[in-house]
Amino acid sequence: MKRSGIKRIRGGVIAAKGFRCAGVRCGIKTGAGAPDLGLILSDGPAILAAVFTTNRVRAAPVLFDRKLLKRGAVRGVVVNAGNANACTGPKGLRDARRMSELAAEFTGAAPGEKFLVASTGIIGVPLPFAKIASGIRDAAARLGRTPAHADAISRAIMTTDLVPKMSAVEIRVGGKPVRIGGIAKGAGMIAPNMATLLCFITTDCAISASLLRRALWEAVGKTFNRITVDGDCSTNDTVALLARAAADNPPITRSGPGFRAFGDGLLAVSKELSQAVVRDGEGASRFVEIRVTGARSESEAGRVARRIATSPLVKCAINGADPNWGRIICAAGYSGAAVEPERMRLWINGQLLFRHAVPAAVPREKLAACMKPKEIRVRLDLGRGRKCARVWTCDLSKKYVAINADYHT
Amino acid sequence: MKRSGIKRIRGGVIAAKGFRCAGVRCGIKTGAGAPDLGLILSDGPAILAAVFTTNRVRAAPVLFDRKLLKRGAVRGVVVNAGNANACTGPKGLRDARRMSELAAEFTGAAPGEKFLVASTGIIGVPLPFAKIASGIRDAAARLGRTPAHADAISRAIMTTDLVPKMSAVEIRVGGKPVRIGGIAKGAGMIAPNMATLLCFITTDCAISASLLRRALWEAVGKTFNRITVDGDCSTNDTVALLARAAADNPPITRSGPGFRAFGDGLLAVSKELSQAVVRDGEGASRFVEIRVTGARSESEAGRVARRIATSPLVKCAINGADPNWGRIICAAGYSGAAVEPERMRLWINGQLLFRHAVPAAVPREKLAACMKPKEIRVRLDLGRGRKCARVWTCDLSKKYVAINADYHT
Repeated sequence: MKRSGIKRIRGGVIAAKGFRCAGVRCGIKTGAGAPDLGLILSDGPAILAAVFTTNRVRAAPVLFDRKLLKRGAVRGVVVNAGNANACTGPKGLRDARRMSELAAEFTGAAPGEKFLVASTGIIGVPLPFAKIASGIRDAAARLGRTPAHADAISRAIMTTDLVPKMSAVEIRVGGKPVRIGGIAKGAGMIAPNMATLLCFITTDCAISASLLRRALWEAVGKTFNRITVDGDCSTNDTVALLARAAADNPPITRSGPGFRAFGDGLLAVSKELSQAVVRDGEGASRFVEIRVTGARSESEAGRVARRIATSPLVKCAINGADPNWGRIICAAGYSGAAVEPERMRLWINGQLLFRHAVPAAVPREKLAACMKPKEIRVRLDLGRGRKCARVWTCDLSKKYVAINADYHT
Repeated sequence: MKRSGIKRIRGGVIAAKGFRCAGVRCGIKTGAGAPDLGLILSDGPAILAAVFTTNRVRAAPVLFDRKLLKRGAVRGVVVNAGNANACTGPKGLRDARRMSELAAEFTGAAPGEKFLVASTGIIGVPLPFAKIASGIRDAAARLGRTPAHADAISRAIMTTDLVPKMSAVEIRVGGKPVRIGGIAKGAGMIAPNMATLLCFITTDCAISASLLRRALWEAVGKTFNRITVDGDCSTNDTVALLARAAADNPPITRSGPGFRAFGDGLLAVSKELSQAVVRDGEGASRFVEIRVTGARSESEAGRVARRIATSPLVKCAINGADPNWGRIICAAGYSGAAVEPERMRLWINGQLLFRHAVPAAVPREKLAACMKPKEIRVRLDLGRGRKCARVWTCDLSKKYVAINADYHT
């Protein structure tokens, strides 16, 4: 147990007591043997908190889930990769509802119990529903709690992701161990696939529905809403958190040490998963942190940081290890924030490069050296106030273009 | 003379009577022999209208020019490529002012006459002023009105541009021929250079200063503000229009047929130059028009069109001739406009692909065929109103990344 009270543990999305999962192949994804259907089952009704894409074009599962969220409880999650079930009209909506129904049927859920539904993959193509149905049946028959199960579902949700992403922690609430763990898939998007961020987290913590929602919003605001690969926001993005009280902790029903401990644990899981998404961004060769300080407000800092993180020029320069810091200042300039070069200071990996409208005198070797590491930490101080924000991103490479241009629908 | 009353003519930025120019090499740009300093001289004071970058980080010449604009008249333009004179502090401002003074001195301008100043190239590096000074002297000695002169200055402003860009038209105002012509350089940006859009237009039309400004604003709003290569907006962007009455036309002092004719002519020049910038975008292999119709307002249409035009995923799909239209719908969805897939219709090169939340049934060959041409025309109808907007862009290629990553500062 670290002093922070957060212990990293194994088990991913089934680290929490009372959850089982399975990842199976139903035949949607190309690539022999790749699993493409996942199921997460809670022992009983779990409280649901979830955050969805802000895209106005919402995939059918997102439309279905948003209604489900009002009920507040689910028995689990059913998810497929290889087809996003987006832009698929009324059939798409029927298919999403049917996925939930079949998951309930094959897992023997009680009447009325629902499953959260998620899909990722090609857009505008109807789901091959016979494959989905047999996949759900298959997954329901193979549910379990072994490391192999955790691994299988983390792979079943992958599209262009190169590595599965999981994280879990144990914290203490009222002296009792409580577990929070999850899986994510990334902002990779091959043609013909859409970028989709999916993340499912479970916990065995006893916590009220309203505090569960609040903890998720706060964690997402500091992690998943702070990452960008290419600025494209998908039709399917979903971060869902399922809580099923099984840890014997005194229920968290108000702000206080217990809620803070839970929030810190959830933040740790969200941070690890969201950064893993960026590290595994399509074609990414470098992990980049953009930290903007000295802003008038957090939203100003976030706006500047996001503009820098989505500038193709900045991302190309980082890809080429080119210390072309002018592009960072330039991107801040068109962020919409009332920045002034006279007040700015810029560091890359600790090296001061620009201060108060004038380049810092930096020897050529030092300038080149600060761009060499695989982790690039940019800090821009706006000199306007005391607020700050961080955004994580990756570089823009020829491989990104190849992945997104050379494949064909 | 076409029925529109607009005749394409030769001569670029010196098509208008009373203007001379020169393009010389002063040694800033790498690449043997490439011209990198240009001078445009009017026979006498010319009325100035200009539009500058909205970037809060403005290069020194932009800061200088914005003050100049208040005086309302200049004798000409002095411009260099290879160094943007941006993020260069007080020395940069002195250098910009000194460029204007030397241009006046070497061309024998009257006391107090000023030159507009523009720079494009690397950011954060002081101007090599001795080279600039000798270049201005050299250019002043070589001013002329031949096609070779027009060609030389159009090349002197290039950075990563592959082709020089010029356009000129003749129109009739009050029965008299009037000329409008210009040059532009593009939204190419090599490391270590910044993207910069520079455009200089001259006219021999007699027109009031206020109507000249209005005509330029209207033309820029429909052309230069409608193009994007990578969404990066530079510290140096400048579109300037110089008018020196030499065409014997009855002066345009109010709205009416004369002003409309002038506006149409200016629009034609601006459109040709701005589209040439996109066609020559870094690594561009395709010219793309995004037309959004059926919007509630022009600004809504423009916002959706710009979001589509700056989506890396859309641009990669076009690069790979992949009919992955879902990415277009998705980009519209996160544009911030209140679009609804149920009301949308999407065409690519005339082929209907998506209507009212459901993909159109299109045979695979037809789907592939609509993405093959080198000019891709996307039309998205939002089904929300009667307003529309167009944006022009290019694809995103591996070559773009190579240009912006593989070179080193």
